[in-house]
Amino acid sequence: MAGYGCALDGEAASWYAAPCHRACGGFAMAVSWQSGPFTFTGTPQIMFGSGMLHKLAELLPGGTRRVLFVMGGFEQSNAEQWKRVSDSLAAASIAYDIAHIRHEPTVEWVDEVVDRFRGGDAVGAVIAIGGGSAMDAGKAVSAMLTTEPGDTVLHYLEGQSAFRAHKGSKIFFVAVPTTSGTGSEMTKNAVISIKGGFKRSLRHDRFIPDVAIVDGSITISCPVAVKAASGLDALTQLIESYVSTKASPMTDALALSGIEAAASSLLPICTSSDAAADVELHERMTYASMMSGITLAHAGLGLVHGFAAPLGGQFPIPHGVICGTLLAEVTKRNIEYLRAAEGESATVASVALAKYAAVGALLTGHPKEDAEGCLARLVETLEAWTELLQIQKLGAYGVNADNLDAVISASDNKQSPVQLDKAAMREILLARI
Amino acid sequence: MAGYGCALDGEAASWYAAPCHRACGGFAMAVSWQSGPFTFTGTPQIMFGSGMLHKLAELLPGGTRRVLFVMGGFEQSNAEQWKRVSDSLAAASIAYDIAHIRHEPTVEWVDEVVDRFRGGDAVGAVIAIGGGSAMDAGKAVSAMLTTEPGDTVLHYLEGQSAFRAHKGSKIFFVAVPTTSGTGSEMTKNAVISIKGGFKRSLRHDRFIPDVAIVDGSITISCPVAVKAASGLDALTQLIESYVSTKASPMTDALALSGIEAAASSLLPICTSSDAAADVELHERMTYASMMSGITLAHAGLGLVHGFAAPLGGQFPIPHGVICGTLLAEVTKRNIEYLRAAEGESATVASVALAKYAAVGALLTGHPKEDAEGCLARLVETLEAWTELLQIQKLGAYGVNADNLDAVISASDNKQSPVQLDKAAMREILLARI
Repeated sequence: MAGYGCALDGEAASWYAAPCHRACGGFAMAVSWQSGPFTFTGTPQIMFGSGMLHKLAELLPGGTRRVLFVMGGFEQSNAEQWKRVSDSLAAASIAYDIAHIRHEPTVEWVDEVVDRFRGGDAVGAVIAIGGGSAMDAGKAVSAMLTTEPGDTVLHYLEGQSAFRAHKGSKIFFVAVPTTSGTGSEMTKNAVISIKGGFKRSLRHDRFIPDVAIVDGSITISCPVAVKAASGLDALTQLIESYVSTKASPMTDALALSGIEAAASSLLPICTSSDAAADVELHERMTYASMMSGITLAHAGLGLVHGFAAPLGGQFPIPHGVICGTLLAEVTKRNIEYLRAAEGESATVASVALAKYAAVGALLTGHPKEDAEGCLARLVETLEAWTELLQIQKLGAYGVNADNLDAVISASDNKQSPVQLDKAAMREILLARI
Repeated sequence: MAGYGCALDGEAASWYAAPCHRACGGFAMAVSWQSGPFTFTGTPQIMFGSGMLHKLAELLPGGTRRVLFVMGGFEQSNAEQWKRVSDSLAAASIAYDIAHIRHEPTVEWVDEVVDRFRGGDAVGAVIAIGGGSAMDAGKAVSAMLTTEPGDTVLHYLEGQSAFRAHKGSKIFFVAVPTTSGTGSEMTKNAVISIKGGFKRSLRHDRFIPDVAIVDGSITISCPVAVKAASGLDALTQLIESYVSTKASPMTDALALSGIEAAASSLLPICTSSDAAADVELHERMTYASMMSGITLAHAGLGLVHGFAAPLGGQFPIPHGVICGTLLAEVTKRNIEYLRAAEGESATVASVALAKYAAVGALLTGHPKEDAEGCLARLVETLEAWTELLQIQKLGAYGVNADNLDAVISASDNKQSPVQLDKAAMREILLARI
């Protein structure tokens, strides 16, 4: 194969290991051509850009007479935008109701809202406007509105003893994120809290929203602490899915594009007064978050998110804070273990290290540096961002050295390219208490 | 905005002009953050990889009892693969019919097939297996099967005097490309020939296939001349959509990823006996083609395709040959005109030139070269590939200096970043007669 336009590094080199393109000072911007087959479930119809929210009425199915909004408090926090939305619905003779969601969605909340709106005047569309909680709540309501009276979402949650598979039918669902973080506007699952401190997923390929309106202008009013934590959640999702063992060339391309967008926007919008209301920078961060939703849904995640489920269930820590506080430390340990593993299983470890180096190059803008340099910069940069973005440590939420056992035993490496053992997991958590 | 992790090149620089990432010897691998808003209609469910065709039966909707294949001659050219497919249908008690398509689909062909299968035992799914003609034919059949008896596809084609908008309903449609070229398995339109040498589109957002099975192993048996021409069609689509004025960060990421895949596979599979049956290289080219379908559908095309419609309508030239024979020449002229335009309208022209340079870097693997060097390499490489892939000139199909007027008057620049006038168009065609 050598001797063609793009010289591969030896006959047997597989594509992802080929240092031919996207050079960063001489090493590859690694793209996966890993174990071959992959599937891509799809995306919503995406309406991206500032002002897109104003098109809401024309995006609804023909004949829609009534819609249900699921929101945290958008009508207060963005009164002007809300007026335009409600005026456009009135002009189209479309009535609306609002179900308010002020916390992460619970089984009780979903069942209560669905009981209220199932039957009666048919709801033609469910429209969620808000952060991850509103996205997940709206997704669950749109799915449960098609079930029989008396049904509870509990039975359709994965891992439940009385689990029943959902048929996948739903009311037309529009997702409008107001934070740049979870990427839930691109995914097929809704995370619902159940009693006892657990979170479970309602999931079906057909639960991918019909339309996602990703309008950067409505994320500007988000509190800066939420921008910081949710932005690091998105960045974590992008990095973890990029280095994932389930990554594909398609998710790699989208992940790199998202990392590039986050690299130039997250820090400014959170730390610079000049950029705090900059529309284009906020658009970039909404783009990064949107890409993270697509890539996590198709390539999976890693140890940071493997920690997040038990930590979030057992302590009152916002999901974005967990991601932000652990990202640098997990990345550092993963790189150390990948280096050690490189001797044994060269391919997987080398690819993952090349990918981490590529992320380092993207985040720091040091394309002239070699791979080792980019790896070092990556960890330094993530550590610096955690400080600059004022992400709290786990100890601030009651985590201490004596109550780690239950967290560690329930944590897993997910699709991480390196499998850390329980002792290594403990070291990571101890470093962030 | 300067001073953050990714230093932008001056306060006012927009993202796409920022030389911060994806460095190619010091200049940017340009990614668009162009005029802001973009829309993304979506993709089919993608099943990518060798062997995926064998999963066909399990991908059909529950309760499917009968399917209609639209094929050129797959059951002969890939007898072994066909046996596995037909056996798996038999095992699932699913009956099938075959509608053969041996040429580009015409109004008469579509109407005849639809009349034959509309009504009677309901067809639960239409499955197209073949090149671009089969993809478009199957797409049209799946859409027309839901119309009333007596309806003709002619009325639903764009640009017809008796045009009627299609409602968008269709029979479940599975696209299985056996060539790496048109990317039609990702798009929402079917190109249909009408009397008088014209081609028109049947188009609707809901005509995007429900499932695309992109199985590299079934493209190996494609004749080498078809691999070469259709591969250059895919490459043209990728390059034209990448530099398009409608490009978005999302299409840019996917286009670069596709160009990267084509760069390392197209020449080997067409010119090296070692690579002629290499599964992974064929997978890469199917990937490139698939990406080109997504990017052309969302970002549009350029002058090569602006020539292709009238040339293909007026002369018996395969679409891939038109693209292959014109790509280098159009690229060369576009770059010349962009350089001239850079003085007047710096931003658009500079972005387009940076993007062309990035393509040159990807295609040639010379990341240490500067932008000027990469631009020169791009044109040289495309010219060399056209020779190596033995793409014929237009003269071989009857085009000559005396019959260019009708072609030129019907050609347009589409979404090209530079608008060439009729005189420049004539020079390009003359150079390729």
